[in-house]
Amino acid sequence: MDSSTLSRIGLAGLAVMGQNLALNIAEKGFPISVYNRTTSKVDETVDRAHREGSLPLTGQYSPREFVLSLQRPRSVIILVKAGNPVDQTIAALSDHMEPGDCIIDGGNEWYENTERRIQQISNKGILYLGMGVSGGEEGARNGPSLMPGGSYQAYSNIQDILMKVAAQVEDGPCVTYIGEGGAGNFVKMVHNGIEYGDMQLISEAYDVLKHVGGLSNSELADIFAEWNSGELESFLVEITADIFKVKDDIGDGYLVDKILDKTGMKGTGKWTVQQAAELSVAAPTIAASLDCRYLSGLKEERENASAVLKEAGLNEEAGFVKSGIDKKRLIDDVRQALYASKICSYAQGMNLLRAKSDEKGWNLNLGELARIWKGGCIIRAVFLDRIKKAYQRNPNLASLIVDPEFAKEMVQRQGAWRRVVGLAISAGISTPGMCASLAYFDTYRRARLPANLVQAQRDLFGAHTYERLDRPGAFHTEWTKIARQSGTGVAALN
Amino acid sequence: MDSSTLSRIGLAGLAVMGQNLALNIAEKGFPISVYNRTTSKVDETVDRAHREGSLPLTGQYSPREFVLSLQRPRSVIILVKAGNPVDQTIAALSDHMEPGDCIIDGGNEWYENTERRIQQISNKGILYLGMGVSGGEEGARNGPSLMPGGSYQAYSNIQDILMKVAAQVEDGPCVTYIGEGGAGNFVKMVHNGIEYGDMQLISEAYDVLKHVGGLSNSELADIFAEWNSGELESFLVEITADIFKVKDDIGDGYLVDKILDKTGMKGTGKWTVQQAAELSVAAPTIAASLDCRYLSGLKEERENASAVLKEAGLNEEAGFVKSGIDKKRLIDDVRQALYASKICSYAQGMNLLRAKSDEKGWNLNLGELARIWKGGCIIRAVFLDRIKKAYQRNPNLASLIVDPEFAKEMVQRQGAWRRVVGLAISAGISTPGMCASLAYFDTYRRARLPANLVQAQRDLFGAHTYERLDRPGAFHTEWTKIARQSGTGVAALN
Repeated sequence: MDSSTLSRIGLAGLAVMGQNLALNIAEKGFPISVYNRTTSKVDETVDRAHREGSLPLTGQYSPREFVLSLQRPRSVIILVKAGNPVDQTIAALSDHMEPGDCIIDGGNEWYENTERRIQQISNKGILYLGMGVSGGEEGARNGPSLMPGGSYQAYSNIQDILMKVAAQVEDGPCVTYIGEGGAGNFVKMVHNGIEYGDMQLISEAYDVLKHVGGLSNSELADIFAEWNSGELESFLVEITADIFKVKDDIGDGYLVDKILDKTGMKGTGKWTVQQAAELSVAAPTIAASLDCRYLSGLKEERENASAVLKEAGLNEEAGFVKSGIDKKRLIDDVRQALYASKICSYAQGMNLLRAKSDEKGWNLNLGELARIWKGGCIIRAVFLDRIKKAYQRNPNLASLIVDPEFAKEMVQRQGAWRRVVGLAISAGISTPGMCASLAYFDTYRRARLPANLVQAQRDLFGAHTYERLDRPGAFHTEWTKIARQSGTGVAALN
Repeated sequence: MDSSTLSRIGLAGLAVMGQNLALNIAEKGFPISVYNRTTSKVDETVDRAHREGSLPLTGQYSPREFVLSLQRPRSVIILVKAGNPVDQTIAALSDHMEPGDCIIDGGNEWYENTERRIQQISNKGILYLGMGVSGGEEGARNGPSLMPGGSYQAYSNIQDILMKVAAQVEDGPCVTYIGEGGAGNFVKMVHNGIEYGDMQLISEAYDVLKHVGGLSNSELADIFAEWNSGELESFLVEITADIFKVKDDIGDGYLVDKILDKTGMKGTGKWTVQQAAELSVAAPTIAASLDCRYLSGLKEERENASAVLKEAGLNEEAGFVKSGIDKKRLIDDVRQALYASKICSYAQGMNLLRAKSDEKGWNLNLGELARIWKGGCIIRAVFLDRIKKAYQRNPNLASLIVDPEFAKEMVQRQGAWRRVVGLAISAGISTPGMCASLAYFDTYRRARLPANLVQAQRDLFGAHTYERLDRPGAFHTEWTKIARQSGTGVAALN
């Protein structure tokens, strides 16, 4: 092949996400070669490229032909299942690649796997990117949010493509070079953790409105649609409004009511929670979302618990829909509670990113991350522009909560927030995400916590020593001895 | 040396815990050899053995002499820092040991390290135990709770010693063979996670009583002492009463008020939270305790947040001590909230243990674990006898919450529990542990959760499919398309 017929880029792995991303790239005018081990997927993609506007897309049927069909330095995006399939695909392709070529893994990969692969493949002089791709099937086709991390050179080679392919928002395309090593995967992982949080908080808002406020699906559809034109404007709120509109085509009523309440998951939420613990970062809202997915899976246990506790005297129904509720006020309160809870969840995610950035020296730009999440991805929201601006105002912001703008918003909403959580608690409706956010807020904003008691306990039983508020040093006290001497003990200074 | 002068057992690593455990063993009539790399610690221990009653304890000054001073098969307990020091100590001792001898690591070791060492040392025919030891310095000296896991043969060799050395409760010594591999370390790890939970919940009770109820330290001392004669009777509640009695010897007032509110930690709580996530077990109360330790460490950030939010209009003081509070009722409510929250925390810990046991084939006996925690250890409590009985009634109990006795107790206390958490939320006092427990209870007891909405969202943006309540199969719906068709959409069956 002479170079004029070579493709600018290649994509291997033609499940729906891969097909859509390839078509997106082709549509933006970049000739692309595609490959899949099961070759029917290649034909399918070629067909779609034809049908969707004679896009410049070429099907290839062997790893060798696929690689050789690309301009050098070659860039190959792979979109296969994380883990082993990625290693296998790399092995199959890299045999035919040359120094300076690059592999871009677009899957939800554990960041350390990317770092291992960067190391391994550097022996062959091949460059590597771990690129988070968010936006689901629709985003892949029409503009995802892209989080490429790894070789900056490799990023530069395809920057023009990524800028065109990514979702476009008013301040640019939703892509930026994230950082070295596994930074792109790590940022995508936390993005997904935040997504868990958003979905959980929305489901709690739904639960309270439905079971405390007694709202119907059609009222819920209207309310979420209304919310989507205010401070909560976001993809997830928008689609929630849509969901409440869909009637069941099998039975009567609305489809949402027929769906089994067991939630699936794919691992990134779990990793986020484990990394938060590892890095000493509190991320309770994200953790609550993960826990709720786990507890949702215990459907049979929950049904049993509901029965046992009813026998033990818990009248579930009595707890729920409240008579005399001011619906309008409840709706307004829930909106505010959702927004305030969301800020805390994002504060947790951002602080987790910073902690990892500090550990790894990635130099993550938190404001820029908020910007590239404004479009394309599942958590896209108007609200992310406020986060971007908060970090622009102060790149060293300790927490979103203390940004002056967000602080004001939290204070304005705290009354409503406390009312909603309090009402849910008294009604027996669990709002673990909203509770976790509120407890996070109330813990973070307190100059003095009861941790002094915990330190005293640790010193008493483990001689762990404690510090004092009024002078430096480590102190130990014989608490028990002193307490039991005549009842009016005086501490001994160590 | 002829065998009559050989010691029955050896202990290497003579920091306070090691010294105390060695003296405890000697006091129970088992001649013991002790060794430490820094030999002054050996002399110190020998001195103590003399002073504390001419106990049968012999100091040794080299690994070889130490090992050769023991009866065969030799059993050597090591009590050094977890991680590398354990490997170094094993290397130093095992050179002189023979097949059939055994090393027992008594530290807070990560269970996988124990499993690695069991494997490695089996090449030399040496047996291995990873033994959790709880009870702090005092427990080590007078009777700890012991959680030995690994080689059953090795356990049998020293069972008589462990039975005498452990704390004694009415239904036996606080020791049992836990299971194979790293089971002993894992159980100790979860014990520590539960301990984090207990300490956090007590500190929240303190916070609410002090800041909402306006109780003084001397009132708090009385209340915790009173609680210690009821359902909350436990070591941690007992020592909390003591702590509130101790006056400061440097300044005026009580010592507890002078302690810096930054909490230290040692890793086992973090591991517990990470393992819970790994095993798909919700452990939100334990996670909340860990988060509070992390947030307590951010003292300067918290002081700043307090100031910023005050500027933004949050009047912190207004939130706190409530006028017109019925103190007596608040105290009684907090007691019930603490107890109910504690049940949920233990339910989480026990379910984590069972999940791991299932994964590893450890066959853990949860009732027996509750029994050996009744004495010696930091979480010792009358309440553990109720847990033991719950698992005796039903070894396959899905959760402590659905044990008929506990279920009744939860139902009786839920009113008080909801009042306390609701009051704290309206007062701006964070009770993350109590909130997490209550949300856990309210989530676990609900036959139907709002997870149906989350599944609908996942199906909409990721084509993840969903299940239905009324028929088997995986379904996918074109939500957006249907919702936006004329507003009265009907779902398409996949």
